[in-house]
Formats: sequence, C-alpha cells, structure tokens
Amino acid sequence: MRIDATHDPALRSWVASANDPAGDFPIQNLPFGRFRRAGSNEPWRIGVAIGDQVLDLHAARAHATWPAELAPTLDALAAGDLNALMAAGAVPRRALRAALSQALAEGSAQQGALARCLVPQSAIELTVPCAIGDYTDFYTGIHHATSVGRLFRPDNPLLPNYEWVPIGYHGRSSSIVASGAPVRRPLGQTRAADAQRPTFAPCQRLDYEVELGFLVGPGNALGEPVGIEAAEDHLFGVTLFNDWSARDVQAWEYQPLGPFLSKNFASTISPWVVTMEALAPFRAPLQRPAGSAQPLPYLDSQATREQGSLAVRLEAWLQTGAMRAAGEAPVRLSQARADEAAFWTPAQLVAHHTVGGCNLQPGDLFGSGTLSGPGPEQAGSLLELSRGGKEPVRLPNGETRSFLADGDTLMLRGVCERDGFRRIGFGDCAGTIVAAPATA
Amino acid sequence: MRIDATHDPALRSWVASANDPAGDFPIQNLPFGRFRRAGSNEPWRIGVAIGDQVLDLHAARAHATWPAELAPTLDALAAGDLNALMAAGAVPRRALRAALSQALAEGSAQQGALARCLVPQSAIELTVPCAIGDYTDFYTGIHHATSVGRLFRPDNPLLPNYEWVPIGYHGRSSSIVASGAPVRRPLGQTRAADAQRPTFAPCQRLDYEVELGFLVGPGNALGEPVGIEAAEDHLFGVTLFNDWSARDVQAWEYQPLGPFLSKNFASTISPWVVTMEALAPFRAPLQRPAGSAQPLPYLDSQATREQGSLAVRLEAWLQTGAMRAAGEAPVRLSQARADEAAFWTPAQLVAHHTVGGCNLQPGDLFGSGTLSGPGPEQAGSLLELSRGGKEPVRLPNGETRSFLADGDTLMLRGVCERDGFRRIGFGDCAGTIVAAPATA
Repeated sequence: MRIDATHDPALRSWVASANDPAGDFPIQNLPFGRFRRAGSNEPWRIGVAIGDQVLDLHAARAHATWPAELAPTLDALAAGDLNALMAAGAVPRRALRAALSQALAEGSAQQGALARCLVPQSAIELTVPCAIGDYTDFYTGIHHATSVGRLFRPDNPLLPNYEWVPIGYHGRSSSIVASGAPVRRPLGQTRAADAQRPTFAPCQRLDYEVELGFLVGPGNALGEPVGIEAAEDHLFGVTLFNDWSARDVQAWEYQPLGPFLSKNFASTISPWVVTMEALAPFRAPLQRPAGSAQPLPYLDSQATREQGSLAVRLEAWLQTGAMRAAGEAPVRLSQARADEAAFWTPAQLVAHHTVGGCNLQPGDLFGSGTLSGPGPEQAGSLLELSRGGKEPVRLPNGETRSFLADGDTLMLRGVCERDGFRRIGFGDCAGTIVAAPATA
Repeated sequence: MRIDATHDPALRSWVASANDPAGDFPIQNLPFGRFRRAGSNEPWRIGVAIGDQVLDLHAARAHATWPAELAPTLDALAAGDLNALMAAGAVPRRALRAALSQALAEGSAQQGALARCLVPQSAIELTVPCAIGDYTDFYTGIHHATSVGRLFRPDNPLLPNYEWVPIGYHGRSSSIVASGAPVRRPLGQTRAADAQRPTFAPCQRLDYEVELGFLVGPGNALGEPVGIEAAEDHLFGVTLFNDWSARDVQAWEYQPLGPFLSKNFASTISPWVVTMEALAPFRAPLQRPAGSAQPLPYLDSQATREQGSLAVRLEAWLQTGAMRAAGEAPVRLSQARADEAAFWTPAQLVAHHTVGGCNLQPGDLFGSGTLSGPGPEQAGSLLELSRGGKEPVRLPNGETRSFLADGDTLMLRGVCERDGFRRIGFGDCAGTIVAAPATA
C-alpha cells in the first residue's frame, strides 16, 4: 500500500489531456490494456492509457530510453504479452510504473521521443487485457446477497455459511469480452412457477451485475496455499466487470450445482487494468455489519482488516434504444461504494481460493460479485432495483425497466477519489443488448 | 459413426505388442497424447500410443513419407500442438488416422522408417493432452444423481429440472493433472451438523468420481449456438476423468452457487485421447428410464437417440498404502457401463452448452459427471458405495474405506468391447493421495 512519488497529486503530464481533473487517466493512474488501430487486423499491442491517448509500449521501447533493468519487462510487453508482466510480480511492475511516470511527466527529456508513440484513444479498439485462463466469480456483496436471498427466503435471507466462507463459483473464461462488444440475449429453458414443463425461448429477465474484477499476478503451485499475509502479492490489478445474468434461466437451472448457462453467454470487462500500485491511495478498512463472525485465522490479518478494501465508487448507467434515437444521454441507475458493499477483501479471496491447494495462474480473473450498497437505491442489478421485477424502474423519458430490453446499453463507471490525491478512474465497461437468435 | 478399414478387427500391426488381445492400444485405437522422456525437460511432443510404444509424431514427420495433404496437420503436431488438430475438425483427423493405420499395419513399407520413431511407454512421462481452456462438469449420471439426491432428500431424490436440463457447472482448468500426479488432500472449512461454527482442517471425506472426459474439437463463435445435428462435429475425443471431491467441504460451501473448493484442488485426466473415430464401433442408443420426459427439440435428434451414447465399461480400482507395502494388487471397487449410466449424450451436452450463445474452443473439456450404474455396487464414488459414509466398504485385506485415506491410489479403467470389433482401452487414470499441508 505504499504511497510514493508516482501518487503526488501535483504531478502533471506533458500529455495535456491527462491533466483534465475530470479524466480517468491522469499520470497517477497509468493502467495497462491491449489495443490496435480500430478496424485493423494488426496484432494486439500493450499500451498505457494517459489522458485521451495511449502510449504504445512497442513503439516506446524502440524510441525512448529506459532503465536497463526494465529490458526484459519491456521486451515482453513489446511482444504484446501482458501475462508476462503479471507473472513477474510487484518489483518490475513498480519499476515500470516509476519509469513511465517520469517519462510522461512535464519536463521529461523523453517527451520528444514518446510523443511519437502516442495513439489517440479515439483511433483504437481494445480487447480483453490479457489471456484469462480461469475465471472465478465471488459473492462478496453482502447487501446484494441479502436482497436476493430475501426474494427467495424472506425470513432468512443470508445462508449460514455466508459470514464464514467467501462464497464463489467457477465461471466461463471464453465468453469474457471487452467493453463495447455487443451482448446477444440468450435463448434458454425457463419454467413458469405454475407450469409442469419448461419452455425454450429468449431470456425474459436479462440483467446486469456491477462488479469489480481482480486480475491475478504471480500464481502459486498446485497444492501450496497462499497465506493471507502474502495474498496481495498475487494480485496485479483491478477492472470493472459486468456479469450479465439471465435470471429466469438461472432460477430453473441452478439447483443443485449453481449458475451455468444463465451466466456464460457473455461477461464484459473494462479493458484498462488499474494496477494495485495506482490504487494504493484508495485502500480502506474492511467494513462489516456489527455482530458479524470473526474470520477464521486463514482469512484474517491486520493489514486486510485495516486497509484490505478498495474505496471505489461504482455506478451503473443506462441508455435505452429510444433514448439513443432521441439523442438523450444515459441515466444513472445506481451508485455504491465497493468498500461499503464487500464483506471480503481481495486478499481474503486469494487466501480462500488457494487454501485447498488450487493453483492460480497469471491473468486469472476474480469477479467480486455484485457490489450493491446498503440502500435499496444503491443496488447493482435490476433484479434488486425492480424488487424481483415487481416494481419496474421508471426512467426520465417515461420508459420503465424491470429487466434489460434489446437495444439497451448498460455502462459501468468506477472512480477513486480521496482528499489529497488525484482522482483516477477505470474507463468504459459497456455493452448493448442485441436480439436473441431466431428459434427454429 | 462410420466404420471403415481402420476398424477391421483382422488388422495387425508390425508393433508386436499392439497385437496383444488384452491391450488398450491396438492399431484400431491410435489415441493421441503429449509425452517426453521421463525425467527430462524436453518440450512436450505429440505421440500416438501403439501397443506398449509411442509413435513420436515429431520424428515420424521427418523420417517417414506421408500424403501431401497431411503436411499442415503434421507440422502442427510436430510442433507439439494438439489443439491445432482439434481445431481442424474431422477431415484431417480421419485422413491422419487412415495414414497412421496404414503405416503401422503389418506389411507397411514404412516400418523401417517408423521403427526408429518408437519410444517405449515405460521410458516416457505424459502430461495433460492439450491446452484446456475451459472445463465444464456435467451431471449426466442419473443413478448417481438419484443416489446422492436420496442422501439429502429421501422422498424426492431427483430435482424437477433433471430430466429437462443437462445440469452442469463450470470447473477449474488450472488444476487438471495427468494420470500419475499426486493428489494432495485439501484443507478446508467444514461444519459438523450439530456445530455452531465451522472448523478448518484437512478434508475428512475425500472421494473420487468415475467420469468420462469429452474434449472439444472445433469451437463455435460467441452468440452462435450449435444445433444438435452438428454437435458431434465439435467433439475430438474422449478420456477418463476423475473429479476428486471433498464431500465435507462441499456440503458446507455449496449453497447457493455450487461446488467450489471441494472440486478445484485437483482433477485427474487420462493422458491418451481416444478419438471419436476410434469409438465409432462402440456407439449405443440413449437409454432412459421409462416415463422420462422427451427432450426439448434443441436436445433431440434421431442420431443421438439411436447411437448417441458410448458403450464404455468403466471401473474403479483401489490400492491402499498397506496393500502396496504388502505387494497386494489393487482391488476393483465397482464397474458400470457409461451407456447404462448417462441420461444425456455428448452431443446433447454440446447443444445445451452453446444454446445460450456460449462459445466453445478447441481443447475445452466436458466431464460427464459420475457414471454410476443402476445397481448399488456399480456406483462410481465412495459416497455412494459407503451410503454417505454409514456403511464402510470392506477390502479383502480387512481394511475398510468410507472415504479415501492418505496413501490410497485410485485408478480408473475404461474399455470398449463389442462382438466383431477389436477391444480398445483408455490407458491409466490414477492418482495417489498425499497428506494435507500442515496447518499453522
């Protein structure tokens, strides 16, 4: 969690747009992503977002001067391999951050060389930031778990294991897409409450889930758990994550082995990875409701209690097809703070995931689970905002939504703000619903 | 399902051991695997098992003569990339099978050249057969689902969705290991039925599950379901698969999102992939209990009803540490036939997995779920054989097992036999339990 010169709020970049106080990508952020020129078939390159530009690390390695110890790091990045940086751990990652911060700062002697390595973000397309081997979705949002549980079990919304076990399940890696990719409404089996037989049709209760994504850095060997004290050493950075969900498909399929087709048709990740170093000023205490159980020792440490959470403000925004046609801006459906929503810290997730011996690998992804705030208007899904579909959300243009309609664009936003530090953000995490395939 | 000259039971190989009628790898089988010399650090190579030898395809490409159209296929295989063959589909796979069958047959002019390309299986080590991107475990064993369900719900063992939905869930790819790798007993949280709080300790109810593994060949694009008629075109081949399970961890963690740490500490795959072509003589009708629901149209076809199942005899064998020390051979715990156990065919699993738009990729793995036969002695797990631990299994040497003990070696065997065809087998799928890590 160390704060260093790269976090100095007075630091300004010679990339003018990076000094916009409302921007997501000041010089204090420096997130990594994989990009190419829009519409090209070029290989994906690693870049660093700075203001409204991308610093192309392939070009930057060739055209600028870097500390000698960064050579292997820059070689891997120039080859388009973010997983190699993830595997290498905090030491080269911090060294690279320091070098990038200096090179992009006002007054840098590298400005002339690096100015040639900038590409406008408006001219690029981005893909998933790394090769994601395995993806696990957790369920750390206690207010979400409580609200959803209440829909099924009004008197006993939280199951007894919730306060002991960081509940999670394995998800589908292949269908994780980057912000901007369309999301096709899934077909699937559902069964009405009063029906004998299921029907096969397009999902009628299509929803989003506001999550953070945690990307694994160095892995661990099979059979060798990672202790809680070392757990953050295995994290690389954080993204936004939308775990699109087919609620009606889920209700019919999920017993006894959990969600499957209701989740695996698409998940959207924000393509810029904000590193653990960039987030250092925005760590927060683990907040738990009074009376919650003390974590078992393998999940507990002073560091995770005192600064294990992430103070990120998360927002969900909707623009319906009608709003788009009328030129109306998106509307905010909710906002919540991750540190007020999450019952478990990222370090606790690493410790739990590995405690039985499961091996993590660089680039693996954890979803936080839906991060709903304590208030009903802070919910991170339509299932919650519409009370299970019973109270549709009314939009300013008169439309209503219980669940998502074809043509809807759902956008997540994430922002870190703290007095004495420069605001940083996560960039876009958006997807537009397209119609289901025709059924035979 | 076509039968051709490669299935001729009279076909013999110039590799003498392949003509042993009790062997798993006659010339009619020709499964693919990845191997290297035992104890070396050489790159993994693709080989084909023949008798007690492996044909090294890297060497075979260089030293023998092959049809010109196989050049790209052999180039990829010589580079150690089985996924490329998987992606290419049935046409090059069948052409390669025909060429290998001719080259390894008695009287082949290639014998002299290929004899130099054989490596004894006793001198090699094998790894997982391909890069497994995503792994899904299904639950197709209706007798298993019924027996396990009865332990929890005596009056209502099968949930209402079972006969409609091919139940499955996402598993962990990173911890899939090849036969022979040790399996470390996991640590984890469990809670006794009468306890207020969970405890953290080594798993006390460690179990195995007898499954088949289905490896995906060509994938499908995100958002584009694979119809049932085309589903088998997306399968490459079949393995044995042991889905090791921590039953006590599972019981505490699995609500509401399914199994997680109880399954992801290790899964063992047999390293030789028996292709769909090799299995052509051993296809069988889909067998379902009288009165079962008709599958929904997207899961139904004449071909899958009439020959969608696989007639594989599956066996589980146990050798305890005490038996090994005493020089006693393993004992068979159970046997069952896959086609008497599975309520869904592999093609139905492909159609279901993709119907919501999920994309499969070459090398993805499906587990069948535990394939227990209809009789209680045919059960594919100790949970079933010991009636939830209440009736320990008595071994010939006087030991008993409700669940697995440290030092136990559990082996799966799989054999296909049919009148008029040469018996083929799957090779080894074994793992030995080692003690859990010490707890702090």
